[in-house]
Amino acid sequence: MKFTISKDRLLNSLNVVVRAISPKNPNPILTGIKFELNNNGLFLTGSNSDLSILTKIPLKENDENLINLQDIGVAIISSKYVLDIVRKLEGDKVEFEVVDTVVLIRDGASEFKLNCMSSEDYPPLDYDVSGVKFTVDAGVVRQIVDQVGFAASANENRPILTGVNFKSNGSNLVCVATDSFRLARKTINIQTGQEFNVTIPAKTLVEIGRVLDNERNVEISLNDKRVCFTMVHTIIVSRVISNPYPNTDKIIPDYFSMELSVLAQNFAAAIDRASLISIENNGIVQLSLDAEEVKISSRNKEIGSVIEKISAFKYSGDRLDISFSSKYGLEAIKALGCTEVTLKFNETSKPFVIINKADPSIVQLILPAITYQ
Amino acid sequence: MKFTISKDRLLNSLNVVVRAISPKNPNPILTGIKFELNNNGLFLTGSNSDLSILTKIPLKENDENLINLQDIGVAIISSKYVLDIVRKLEGDKVEFEVVDTVVLIRDGASEFKLNCMSSEDYPPLDYDVSGVKFTVDAGVVRQIVDQVGFAASANENRPILTGVNFKSNGSNLVCVATDSFRLARKTINIQTGQEFNVTIPAKTLVEIGRVLDNERNVEISLNDKRVCFTMVHTIIVSRVISNPYPNTDKIIPDYFSMELSVLAQNFAAAIDRASLISIENNGIVQLSLDAEEVKISSRNKEIGSVIEKISAFKYSGDRLDISFSSKYGLEAIKALGCTEVTLKFNETSKPFVIINKADPSIVQLILPAITYQ
Repeated sequence: MKFTISKDRLLNSLNVVVRAISPKNPNPILTGIKFELNNNGLFLTGSNSDLSILTKIPLKENDENLINLQDIGVAIISSKYVLDIVRKLEGDKVEFEVVDTVVLIRDGASEFKLNCMSSEDYPPLDYDVSGVKFTVDAGVVRQIVDQVGFAASANENRPILTGVNFKSNGSNLVCVATDSFRLARKTINIQTGQEFNVTIPAKTLVEIGRVLDNERNVEISLNDKRVCFTMVHTIIVSRVISNPYPNTDKIIPDYFSMELSVLAQNFAAAIDRASLISIENNGIVQLSLDAEEVKISSRNKEIGSVIEKISAFKYSGDRLDISFSSKYGLEAIKALGCTEVTLKFNETSKPFVIINKADPSIVQLILPAITYQ
Repeated sequence: MKFTISKDRLLNSLNVVVRAISPKNPNPILTGIKFELNNNGLFLTGSNSDLSILTKIPLKENDENLINLQDIGVAIISSKYVLDIVRKLEGDKVEFEVVDTVVLIRDGASEFKLNCMSSEDYPPLDYDVSGVKFTVDAGVVRQIVDQVGFAASANENRPILTGVNFKSNGSNLVCVATDSFRLARKTINIQTGQEFNVTIPAKTLVEIGRVLDNERNVEISLNDKRVCFTMVHTIIVSRVISNPYPNTDKIIPDYFSMELSVLAQNFAAAIDRASLISIENNGIVQLSLDAEEVKISSRNKEIGSVIEKISAFKYSGDRLDISFSSKYGLEAIKALGCTEVTLKFNETSKPFVIINKADPSIVQLILPAITYQ
């Protein structure tokens, strides 16, 4: 293998595939990045066996020569070193040459020699996932990542909740994440063609979010073992979580008796300030609602108290006091990403939802905390 | 105590005094900020007993009303909360009012009540240090902080080396820091009037560096117990380290037999890249010098090797191979802050210096590492 390549383009692509690599992987070959050069371009792969990312740098793009190919080949190069080396080289172009088990990385005055791992030891990765196949607008995938993915659990004790459930009846797709104290659900009208119900690790979605920037469409293919996201130059394959996802269909109430509409930024800032007093109480704040006044408050005997008055609001319903985690409230409002949010309640101890009336596809549900009077 | 104050100005001053506060100070009163309002302005104090910072916000500045004073007084307010509260308030002005043992912090829709600590428990701080007194240009203080302070030891096992030694014969000031593997020395021609030899904690100098921005001069007063830095609105008092500082007068050689001049940025980038291969060997790199070629290299049997050729250099002397810590080399070059640096050597095992020929006031000395051929 011998080639010269645009440094910036290589660095971008290395940064994409390295996201799949666990530096402490017990299988040392997977701490390496696979470089495979052929007449179609340079293919880089990073994998931790649960998640694999393959990205391609074509030889030419828009009449610009990205790679000057001298000799095709394959090499597994330590991700720990190659990324820093390429980042710190000074020129616009980097030369790679594999001689026996060593790769030479050269750029003007710098010459690195790195010992390679044997490419024969690199596990074969299959990017062809047979099963359901459909195409989603990249902007919609971005919404699933940002509006739903954050609500998955970070706690590995119940692995199924660390994923985002993708469920379809063939003509729409419902994406749900919950950590059992809050839930986010997005419904997308899309012909998936077939029924399915798979749960994708939230971490996989985060990585997809990072490579979406210049994409227009994402082809998703999935079965009960794996899911594959295919973009123009990048393919991400991930295992799915095999346990069945809990049935969340009945969790979001159909009916609410109170409704509050507020300016999102204003309301979020008040929650954030009120939470300062309850840092030591998991940031629980109390929302007090009636037709005259909307207040967010928090108190702690040792520290003090805070009252935040919300000046602009619309409220319909009886008087209500309800407590909730400021973190959950703030994340839900941020995920909706709109100017005005609407909160709908039943009673002090029942779940409430935060929605954007202009976009009914997304619902954020939060379980209240116990309210002490 | 009751007043309304410019939020941004208060936040700036809180950020200055909070630097002296240790959130886990065993003396709880010292986790608070002392607010003292009188007809001269608002005086804020933060202290960890080793280091105290007092800063003043005048009532008026350049015809602008900074504080609307309604009632003078004193209060000790938790630093943990007041800083975040002021930072997150929305308006330009904040109102403070102390009622019994509670301070009310108000701004439009927000009203915080924080329990105060008793101002009678706050230890008296004496900012009047009798002893030697002299005035230094703020830019020179900045140089002492940036060019010398970094070379102090971070290891508390030998406390005296965590400080910067200030020594004067009355007509100049020599500032030295060393961690026993490298040393930085700056000589300033200034009439201090008296002989002295005190060692100031490097941490104190870091804090002084942070408040220097808008200052022109710093008045330094010191004795064998304390040092006081007086600026326009801010006073910093610190204990000095009482142990005697080791005699470093003879450590910098008078004579060198080899001399290398290189472009600082170019040379530093090459050291930085070469150190990538020796991360697991404390970043030790080898410099190889002769009249024809200057190279920086590093090798590791398992990882690989690197050779960096320096293209622009002037060298006089015999052939030399010398190894050193890339961290020390990079920090010394950065501290000099100049375009061209000169390195002077004797032999492989002897200390070498890095200097800026245009500014002989500052010398960086580094002990080489063992060179394995």
